[in-house]
Amino acid sequence: MEIKIVKKLLEENDGQANQLRKALSEKKQLMINFMSSPGSGKTTLLEALIPNLQSMKIRIGVIQGDIATLSDSQRLEHFDIPIVQINTDRFGGECHLSAASVMSALELMPPHSNQIDLILLENIGNLVCPAEFDTGAHINIVVLSLAEGEDKPEKYPLAFRKADIVILNKIDLAEICEVEIALFHANVKKINPRVQIFETSAKKDVGITSVAQKIQSALMEIR
Amino acid sequence: MEIKIVKKLLEENDGQANQLRKALSEKKQLMINFMSSPGSGKTTLLEALIPNLQSMKIRIGVIQGDIATLSDSQRLEHFDIPIVQINTDRFGGECHLSAASVMSALELMPPHSNQIDLILLENIGNLVCPAEFDTGAHINIVVLSLAEGEDKPEKYPLAFRKADIVILNKIDLAEICEVEIALFHANVKKINPRVQIFETSAKKDVGITSVAQKIQSALMEIR
Repeated sequence: MEIKIVKKLLEENDGQANQLRKALSEKKQLMINFMSSPGSGKTTLLEALIPNLQSMKIRIGVIQGDIATLSDSQRLEHFDIPIVQINTDRFGGECHLSAASVMSALELMPPHSNQIDLILLENIGNLVCPAEFDTGAHINIVVLSLAEGEDKPEKYPLAFRKADIVILNKIDLAEICEVEIALFHANVKKINPRVQIFETSAKKDVGITSVAQKIQSALMEIR
Repeated sequence: MEIKIVKKLLEENDGQANQLRKALSEKKQLMINFMSSPGSGKTTLLEALIPNLQSMKIRIGVIQGDIATLSDSQRLEHFDIPIVQINTDRFGGECHLSAASVMSALELMPPHSNQIDLILLENIGNLVCPAEFDTGAHINIVVLSLAEGEDKPEKYPLAFRKADIVILNKIDLAEICEVEIALFHANVKKINPRVQIFETSAKKDVGITSVAQKIQSALMEIR
């Protein structure tokens, strides 16, 4: 009985996600879903990406998903862009964002949010559950910190299978962590041969422009 | 309706966990549940801890929880101790270990496993869901990699609230990650003032003996 209900929940979510994606496309708004483990550097990546995207005249809105705290939103406040924070501890500490929660967040965007070109969605730090729930985003990005180890794609295959783009972040730690970046590439490709991989150090502002350019060309495509 | 069923599931799990903990205590077996994000270094920590515990004549069994792959078990194989791997992708990719899955794993331990003193349970890499499911362990340890950032206790409060011990791992990365270890301590204590904190670098074999001694004294207590 529990399994049937979970299946029904996922099917309902898929329906809502498809509906949301279609509505966003009609408004020429692109939504990108960032998924990762806790502490992979998603927020720091957004901090580095946003000024790059703004210099391309892209109008940005952000949805932040967290179980608790407003700290990620506060880190982005100075950009003066619309940010909506979802704290799932109000709803039993849910471990993922659903299409319905994203829809509610979008309704909380300020009135001029129709002029937004790009919605950046920072999912809850969890490499398992968010991958099961389509958020309605057009593009799924998985961020993997090099400090997590090169075995993660095989151990958490669903997230990497669902990814359109994988960002290998914290490449500045490669040497001290004694990891080979080539092995990360190979292990990601083993799970998802078609995925595009970027290398970044969000903290040191390395590789950010390439990601911003990729987002810019994705925006062109839905226009 | 879904909420009621989740509540029922959690209640059932709590009942089974209490039963399992009691059964283990009666056999003078101590079980420790290791929880963390993906890539915090749980397996490396076990690799460092096991020889330390073995030198104290403690007989060890390991239960490895992963969504997919046998890689963690393979890393511990050379210790010649009983290891049971649970791969949840056979059960829909569950994001946590339940008391029932741990009971089943214990039944798969080899016949001489009654002589085990200590069961080390490596939960699935996920800082959210495992904290909701009591595994039946006597002690919950949360491992936090310094590379994940000092804001994690407040962002994932349940895991830290459920922890008896927090291990700050990868302290060798403190300098390059530009983090203050004192801030990690303060943030952990903010969520859980009574928790005991250890600092380790499992990879560089730093701080492991103190953790092993703590486990040894916990073993004394249940005898």
